[in-house]
Amino acid sequence: MKTNVVFAVNQTEDRQKQLINEFHDVQFSFFSSMKEAEEKLETADVLLTFGEDIGVSVLNRAKQLKWIHVLSAGVEKMPFSELTKRNILVSNSRGIHAIPMSEHAIWAMLDDVKKASIYKGAQKKKDWVRSIKPNELTDATVVILGTGAIGTMIAERARVFSMKTVGVNTDGRAVAAFDQTYSLSEWKQALQQADYVINVLPQTPQTEELLNEDAFSLIKEGAVFINLGRGKSVVENALLHAVELGKVRHAYLDVFQQEPLPVDSPLWHHEAITITPHISAATAFYMQRALEIFNKNLVVFQQKKTIYTNEVQLNKGY
Amino acid sequence: MKTNVVFAVNQTEDRQKQLINEFHDVQFSFFSSMKEAEEKLETADVLLTFGEDIGVSVLNRAKQLKWIHVLSAGVEKMPFSELTKRNILVSNSRGIHAIPMSEHAIWAMLDDVKKASIYKGAQKKKDWVRSIKPNELTDATVVILGTGAIGTMIAERARVFSMKTVGVNTDGRAVAAFDQTYSLSEWKQALQQADYVINVLPQTPQTEELLNEDAFSLIKEGAVFINLGRGKSVVENALLHAVELGKVRHAYLDVFQQEPLPVDSPLWHHEAITITPHISAATAFYMQRALEIFNKNLVVFQQKKTIYTNEVQLNKGY
Repeated sequence: MKTNVVFAVNQTEDRQKQLINEFHDVQFSFFSSMKEAEEKLETADVLLTFGEDIGVSVLNRAKQLKWIHVLSAGVEKMPFSELTKRNILVSNSRGIHAIPMSEHAIWAMLDDVKKASIYKGAQKKKDWVRSIKPNELTDATVVILGTGAIGTMIAERARVFSMKTVGVNTDGRAVAAFDQTYSLSEWKQALQQADYVINVLPQTPQTEELLNEDAFSLIKEGAVFINLGRGKSVVENALLHAVELGKVRHAYLDVFQQEPLPVDSPLWHHEAITITPHISAATAFYMQRALEIFNKNLVVFQQKKTIYTNEVQLNKGY
Repeated sequence: MKTNVVFAVNQTEDRQKQLINEFHDVQFSFFSSMKEAEEKLETADVLLTFGEDIGVSVLNRAKQLKWIHVLSAGVEKMPFSELTKRNILVSNSRGIHAIPMSEHAIWAMLDDVKKASIYKGAQKKKDWVRSIKPNELTDATVVILGTGAIGTMIAERARVFSMKTVGVNTDGRAVAAFDQTYSLSEWKQALQQADYVINVLPQTPQTEELLNEDAFSLIKEGAVFINLGRGKSVVENALLHAVELGKVRHAYLDVFQQEPLPVDSPLWHHEAITITPHISAATAFYMQRALEIFNKNLVVFQQKKTIYTNEVQLNKGY
């Protein structure tokens, strides 16, 4: 019998054809959402999703489900205990975010150091402003919270700009792209050296509200904070207070406690805060790269092997 | 007798002290401008300037002058025939521009590809815009006009972002950081491949109005043009026309035919043009690095040796 693979994520016709041509012993069903996919869940062996729509009701319906591949990195909304009980394999698309997110991180640091907003503002007033000069990333210290694929690529690229790289991870283990690393229990020491702090940590109980009032009080005066990880890592009021005090010179925020960012959030209209709508990982290459991981794992699945790329540790939550 | 070194460029007290401490057999005179320095020109052996204030009248007054060190890279306003006649050595500070200018070039490409202006505009309207997505530099082609220190460092850094690098120089010689190079006589072939065109050429008779109507008509549809070299390389009306047609999707301009850019220039208020006021080489490290070259050359001068760093070829004009 053919393996039933159900997509609850939209795919172009080209990609659908490619999959069908590549896997003759697989029956693909393509839908744009979980709601549309409902009719096929009952016989699904494999389910593809962005990870936010897997509730217990979906799992109840999908009685034959053996494997979920998440076409993003965020799995925090998944019902881990139910998945463990049912022994359902979960893999995700972490790693492919490293390229666009490291571009975004370098863009944010250059946008700050080259004073882009000031020059763009001056242009509107036809002001040939010579009293302000750009700075340079050379010799500046970037503290990166998270030393996985994303943090590592940011560090590698920051080094090209002659920056000093400091990493923070759970146990403080050394990682090649970082001049220095701290564990999550000692990470606040890193804050005092930071010209730039970049958060790319996943959402776990350990990282929730990690950037709180205490952290922002310890941060080096005039540091720039860049959040590309999860909004729940930041106490937004504490950040706003630090920005208002000038303690944090500028914040580049791509993720928020609540998304979309509510219209009445004071973060929208502070001139030392730059908002992007959770797009740091977005790229035209995204789906192509996410499917490369899925395709590799589908071969493993069909051959009944056990080593999957990016298998999610259900007990750890990432 | 002590060598007389006259600065017509402002120096901090710290730097003045450093120079005095380092060179005991040199008499330094520090001024902020050529006008102020006039009184000391008559006995000057060595003169430091940004290169725009060396006229024949200055040379007439400076009868003992043997060497001019220019604390910038631009020497196009210097009276070359008079300098040649008088056998005055000229050295400049080229090379030190590579770091800040390559940062500026990478910033401009990321500002474009990450759609920074669109997101900043959306923030003003509190618009969580999800219909627009950023792109990525991966696999894009950058054509760099000029393969010297600046062009090479831009290419090296562009490669870190997985871009294809194409260089243009006088004779088309291969240069390590470039996947491909064209000579100035064949350079227009490169324009058809370009997602980004970056000009860092010096001003010479060969480069004047190089980017004319013909060039912009050959450029790949939707290319981005970045000018960090000299404003005289560009026919501004032809560029504006290409931008209006959408042939050039965006222009990042740091240099202009006339500087400061006149208030009535139409370049100021086109939304597909980003203006910066000739600051791509500016950095807090600038004077420190320019003086490192001068100091090295001053040792050579004092020891009556002949191999100077960055000696300007008076017959070539750079």
